[in-house]
Amino acid sequence: MQTENRQFLLAERPNGAPTAETFNMVTTTIPEPGEGELRIRTIYLSLDPYMRGRMNAERSYAEPVAVGAVMEGGTVGVVEASRHAGFADGDLVVGRTGWQDYALSDGEGLRKIDPPVPGGPPISTALGVLGMPGLTAYTGLLNIGKPQPGETLVVAAASGAVGSVVGQIGKIKGCRVVGVAGGLEKCRYVVDELGFDACLDHRAADFEDQLAAACPDRIDVYFENVAGRVLEAVIPLFNFFARMPVCGLIAQYNMTDLPGGPNKLPMLMRAVLTNRLAMRGFIVREFWSQQDEFLQEAVQWIKDGKLKYKEYRVAGLERAPETLIGLLKGENFGKVVVEVSPDPTQ
Amino acid sequence: MQTENRQFLLAERPNGAPTAETFNMVTTTIPEPGEGELRIRTIYLSLDPYMRGRMNAERSYAEPVAVGAVMEGGTVGVVEASRHAGFADGDLVVGRTGWQDYALSDGEGLRKIDPPVPGGPPISTALGVLGMPGLTAYTGLLNIGKPQPGETLVVAAASGAVGSVVGQIGKIKGCRVVGVAGGLEKCRYVVDELGFDACLDHRAADFEDQLAAACPDRIDVYFENVAGRVLEAVIPLFNFFARMPVCGLIAQYNMTDLPGGPNKLPMLMRAVLTNRLAMRGFIVREFWSQQDEFLQEAVQWIKDGKLKYKEYRVAGLERAPETLIGLLKGENFGKVVVEVSPDPTQ
Repeated sequence: MQTENRQFLLAERPNGAPTAETFNMVTTTIPEPGEGELRIRTIYLSLDPYMRGRMNAERSYAEPVAVGAVMEGGTVGVVEASRHAGFADGDLVVGRTGWQDYALSDGEGLRKIDPPVPGGPPISTALGVLGMPGLTAYTGLLNIGKPQPGETLVVAAASGAVGSVVGQIGKIKGCRVVGVAGGLEKCRYVVDELGFDACLDHRAADFEDQLAAACPDRIDVYFENVAGRVLEAVIPLFNFFARMPVCGLIAQYNMTDLPGGPNKLPMLMRAVLTNRLAMRGFIVREFWSQQDEFLQEAVQWIKDGKLKYKEYRVAGLERAPETLIGLLKGENFGKVVVEVSPDPTQ
Repeated sequence: MQTENRQFLLAERPNGAPTAETFNMVTTTIPEPGEGELRIRTIYLSLDPYMRGRMNAERSYAEPVAVGAVMEGGTVGVVEASRHAGFADGDLVVGRTGWQDYALSDGEGLRKIDPPVPGGPPISTALGVLGMPGLTAYTGLLNIGKPQPGETLVVAAASGAVGSVVGQIGKIKGCRVVGVAGGLEKCRYVVDELGFDACLDHRAADFEDQLAAACPDRIDVYFENVAGRVLEAVIPLFNFFARMPVCGLIAQYNMTDLPGGPNKLPMLMRAVLTNRLAMRGFIVREFWSQQDEFLQEAVQWIKDGKLKYKEYRVAGLERAPETLIGLLKGENFGKVVVEVSPDPTQ
């Protein structure tokens, strides 16, 4: 157990891919709650692609992390030294307490979670399949993608925290689901374990041809969380009245300049017009009100074996920077969870 | 009056901009209706940007015009030699009878129109402000653009058949409306006659800066019927939850290859994600059911002086090819109508 509070601060705004210099670890004393506050000991820290966006000063849907501030992040933790009427020591909570061992909270934005049922998913899944990524997948797919039985759904980053859930819900809804992932091992998992109809390696030289062959009835829903080569391969294959929820763009987050030509924007615009395509960017925050409904369905789907998940566990808060850097390159295999302190429920 | 039927056929699929060789004029006898048919003498032929798309064999929302077939087009005509119980000689009809002096019809798809009221709009407006372009503007803007009072609406091709109506409806709905047009004369008309708040010449060297300055509260709705430079200038200016009905892409219809770099697709995708932008391609056909409601409102708006229109009349069917070629370069100023035969109501 830590005797001090390690915090990772944003040291500087990265130009392109973040590096070790992007982060600065400082050590402070473990904070003591005031009246109406509680302390949270971080058990698990979630690392997610959106964190790259928060490092930029550009206008976006969320305020950037200030240089010198603690890096943002979702966590599962345990309540200690509570002076808050709504929380008792030992309570398990999900919150956005950031890249640190300990955080103070006034309870705002915290959600209590139950200890795991025997044989059930661990509390870390509150950061993945039963957390923000799962809700992102569920709400983006159902509200914007609107998958119908018999339609073809294409999902990029198919073995990742969001993509894996999108595709499995697509199967539950009766779609033909084609995943795209980086490497054969991930593709095999997506088909053999997650039950997608096909999964293609976007690194293959003939990826575009493989995608066309895997979508003989074209594409009705493309759940966009990657952009880049995958998007460009999808564009010519859209069906009439196709839908594209735009959830993330991991392939371009580290981009410092626009890529060279040709300019593919006219290709997309033509596809939008001729197919009457609907595209819409979203963030999960818009759909918080659907969380209870999501959790109810997702817990049942997990019990029924219809919704599987894979965690990519990394031991030690000190590894968060290198792990996020790797995540942005697709080096993880499953939902990235940093083990910050011992899980009392394991 | 013609004694023969002149028809313009699609001679070949153009590679890039259509030329005189794209079209082939043939002369046939004036057709005689069979039982249940009627003949239509074309009075006005509408020329519209979508016609460029019909010349291509590529997959789109409508079947292409076959090589050797009569060019498609909307017309206002008068019924002759009717052997159809629903139509009498002298009836005025709007239909899609194409680039020819005379057409046979079984009545399918024809809509009767009334002669003009004194001082009211001429029957040619059934091809413009009270026809397909007007309905396109109305339905695309209201169903997809969803303009709200106080929002900023940007309209390209602002003096054209669709754009002019979009902007004026935007004003009726309480928006700040910024038009974009080609040349100062069109821009002056858009502001002085149509009442837009501003109109910018997309040929200006500092057009991008002018657009940003004209949209101090950013852009909530961009009605897309141009693409190209205008779209690229709009992309950085979107507001959160902005909407983009995609109606047409005239700047890229004659494109044979994608333009050179940089590749602006990532720029659009970033705007979609960070603004939670909704884009949707549409064609007016989806919204035919709103035609009665549209006509009721539009006729009243014209009476009230809130909806103005400008026709760009060209005399003689023989000028249709050169006029369409010019339309695709923005040489028209207002809704393009070809006068094919005398208008009995004038």
